[in-house]
Amino acid sequence: MGCGRVGAQLAGLLDSDGHSVTILDTNAYSFRRLLPAFSGTALVGNGTDEEALKKAGIEEADAFVAVTQGDNRNVLAAQIAKHIFGVPRVICRIYDPIRQELYNTLGLETFSPTTLFAQMLKEKLEK
Amino acid sequence: MGCGRVGAQLAGLLDSDGHSVTILDTNAYSFRRLLPAFSGTALVGNGTDEEALKKAGIEEADAFVAVTQGDNRNVLAAQIAKHIFGVPRVICRIYDPIRQELYNTLGLETFSPTTLFAQMLKEKLEK
Repeated sequence: MGCGRVGAQLAGLLDSDGHSVTILDTNAYSFRRLLPAFSGTALVGNGTDEEALKKAGIEEADAFVAVTQGDNRNVLAAQIAKHIFGVPRVICRIYDPIRQELYNTLGLETFSPTTLFAQMLKEKLEK
Repeated sequence: MGCGRVGAQLAGLLDSDGHSVTILDTNAYSFRRLLPAFSGTALVGNGTDEEALKKAGIEEADAFVAVTQGDNRNVLAAQIAKHIFGVPRVICRIYDPIRQELYNTLGLETFSPTTLFAQMLKEKLEK
């Protein structure tokens, strides 16, 4: 869910590795980011909408990744994927480190680019 | 340069480690992201402007990090820091993976969150 830069690149990587990928975005224009070689499915729809998720095949999905620009949307969609559809592997991007901690505690597998990058840059600088 | 989420967090990490940190942003409101414990300097100014960089102490700096939202601004400021002021360590965020490759080739130390995250997510999923 989310065909931004990270979503599009991840979809491409998984697709070229032979996985069956469906990418969902509310804005069809975002699909321009997919490489021409992408052989998966691109679907216009909202990942917080159960009908859209079903259409995207969530009931058969092994994994669900929420990487839209909105933390709240990502969290909501990830919780739906995990708790309503029982997707085995759910990962969710949360920019806000405070919310990230909270949702980690609540059992959601989250990652915060903010924390990761600040830490990574610090290590680079101190090397 | 750039007091967004990553910039503010990195400044805080370095500051609390005892480094002398100056953070530069064109928008004073962005300094709200700094923790109250931050003991460095927050300066309103444009990191692509040599006068602002001098005021921020670039001539004595050991390192310069460009993490605004704009790839072009980051690249320009990083090149000024490296080539005009001879800052020993310069790191520059570039969202666009294609530009990132180009600037890496040109000798700038860059990192692209896009590429790093797509790769990291893929590895997490395939684990």
